[in-house]
Amino acid sequence: MIEDKNQARTDLSDLGEFGLIDHLTKNFKINHSSTIKGIGDDAAVLKFNNKIVITTDLLIEGVHFDLSYVPLKHLGYKAVIVNLSDVYAMNAKATQITVSIAVSNRFPLEALEALYEGIETAAKIYDIDVIGGDTTSSTTGLLISVTAIGETENEVYRSEAKPNDLLVVTGDLGGAYMGLQVLEREKEVYKVNPNNQPDLEAYTYIIERQLKPEARKDIIKLLKDLNVKPSAMIDISDGLSSEIMHICKQSNVGCDLYEEKIPLDPQVISTCEEFNIDSTTVALNGGEDYELLFTIAQEDYPKIKANPNFSIIGHIKELTEGLHLITRANTKIPLKAQGWKNFNA
Amino acid sequence: MIEDKNQARTDLSDLGEFGLIDHLTKNFKINHSSTIKGIGDDAAVLKFNNKIVITTDLLIEGVHFDLSYVPLKHLGYKAVIVNLSDVYAMNAKATQITVSIAVSNRFPLEALEALYEGIETAAKIYDIDVIGGDTTSSTTGLLISVTAIGETENEVYRSEAKPNDLLVVTGDLGGAYMGLQVLEREKEVYKVNPNNQPDLEAYTYIIERQLKPEARKDIIKLLKDLNVKPSAMIDISDGLSSEIMHICKQSNVGCDLYEEKIPLDPQVISTCEEFNIDSTTVALNGGEDYELLFTIAQEDYPKIKANPNFSIIGHIKELTEGLHLITRANTKIPLKAQGWKNFNA
Repeated sequence: MIEDKNQARTDLSDLGEFGLIDHLTKNFKINHSSTIKGIGDDAAVLKFNNKIVITTDLLIEGVHFDLSYVPLKHLGYKAVIVNLSDVYAMNAKATQITVSIAVSNRFPLEALEALYEGIETAAKIYDIDVIGGDTTSSTTGLLISVTAIGETENEVYRSEAKPNDLLVVTGDLGGAYMGLQVLEREKEVYKVNPNNQPDLEAYTYIIERQLKPEARKDIIKLLKDLNVKPSAMIDISDGLSSEIMHICKQSNVGCDLYEEKIPLDPQVISTCEEFNIDSTTVALNGGEDYELLFTIAQEDYPKIKANPNFSIIGHIKELTEGLHLITRANTKIPLKAQGWKNFNA
Repeated sequence: MIEDKNQARTDLSDLGEFGLIDHLTKNFKINHSSTIKGIGDDAAVLKFNNKIVITTDLLIEGVHFDLSYVPLKHLGYKAVIVNLSDVYAMNAKATQITVSIAVSNRFPLEALEALYEGIETAAKIYDIDVIGGDTTSSTTGLLISVTAIGETENEVYRSEAKPNDLLVVTGDLGGAYMGLQVLEREKEVYKVNPNNQPDLEAYTYIIERQLKPEARKDIIKLLKDLNVKPSAMIDISDGLSSEIMHICKQSNVGCDLYEEKIPLDPQVISTCEEFNIDSTTVALNGGEDYELLFTIAQEDYPKIKANPNFSIIGHIKELTEGLHLITRANTKIPLKAQGWKNFNA
């Protein structure tokens, strides 16, 4: 919404494909001993002593992001984060990424520099080597494909949750979704009156959750320090409900989820009231919070109790008992996932 | 150009994102012991004893392919091949890939099934495990992002060519480019007269080079059997000239390339004559042949001479001597790369 009309504009065609890659990646440093060769050959070369995990995600303009309110630097940052989150969800340490982008000629070089600045910032903060990628033109918008690699001694799957395990979530939920609602509303206001200066002070936290999410690298370290190995783990990209259902389906178990235990930030609650949306629905189906959801054995409870990073929100049951939400009014209703269904657009 | 108007058409929205991934990947088998966990969790889990290589490529509709003459099955096959080619160019054995696609709602499920059939065929033939990916919607066309992983004991870079090394290329060059010219011409004919039945008999080889390229897995095995380790290697995706320049630049060397030694298939020569294009220009700048270009020490010459897989096309010189093409008329002209400049469109 804030656009500098006088910004510099260098056409991508002035550099050519190889010149462009060289220019955009010139600041990337290699830090990990597992990176033998980064950018610059037919492939990167890596060497690991442990098992590795690998995951990939596409982010597409008009589907996953709207450049009318997502700054390119934030987009680059977020594209890295969503992939790192999957690595951490395996109980792995993220070490490398590749980044491929496709852009139409409507993007000047300066736009890609901003995008790569975000990628570089995420790589620095999360200590990741950027080891490769592809840069090409697209016929329409912007597209980012990131592949992330991590190292693990002790991977955690979605499929090993056991009856009586506790269901635990990190941080708080629904913020990213409500941040998106605020941004969408401001976009509509801007269309009507481009001179309106939005006051977003009251929404700082939730807008940041949407535009600059973080991946829970800290939790992987914390669980190790606490000597807790989750039985199952997943990251929350599509909403709590959908992720619980993945764990239950793949582990062949049921669960009880307690509505009153779902962690919500006060800003999420107040914004939900303002928008007249039920905050539990937002937490269950909102998505993009990139928190971790995991299950632990009952005997590990003393290790995590009273830790502000964790909320115990329910427990695993036998498959035959089904998947339920226990409401604040103490009624038991079947858990449903609405999630983000891109293909239902 | 050949379209069945009565084909079945199932909307992607009928399956939803998770249903779609499950459906498309249900036939994929895991064969490699290095694949501990494939599709179905936050990330795949792998374990290697050797070094690994990793490479990624984007293929975008309207930029890299034209669905008016590229069957989706062939496209799926080719998307895998272009990535495997980069793995082989590192002197590695390709073992796994991830495949991400973005499609607009104009594609029915049956189109994606054809695409995945091509991916599955390539995976079977090249003995590759498909271990993950992402499937999402796009606002316009089709996009495929593949990441390939391979294992190597003895990687070969672009940067280790030495003066006096021999410059060697596999197979023959220019076929893929001339196949594209024929397909583009037939597309124009079809626009004018959709009932015209093209006779492509005379172009079978070059059309196959364009639509169904192969990666030179066999060469990596052959070099090992012959006990030849190239000093430098690259795959030919952008044209011979551009690839030679990459090796020379990264190795800090010059070279002499002999025009008369460049391997051309008779069908490339005859089609070049028909189109009134110089066949050397096509071989130098055509691209997409996915042959391997490498350098070997002079002492390895006896091991590869008279082998029909290899053509010795020149030799490496000191950097100060420059990069030259020695023409059939025995004149020496500086080597230039025109290549494929996507951003110059």
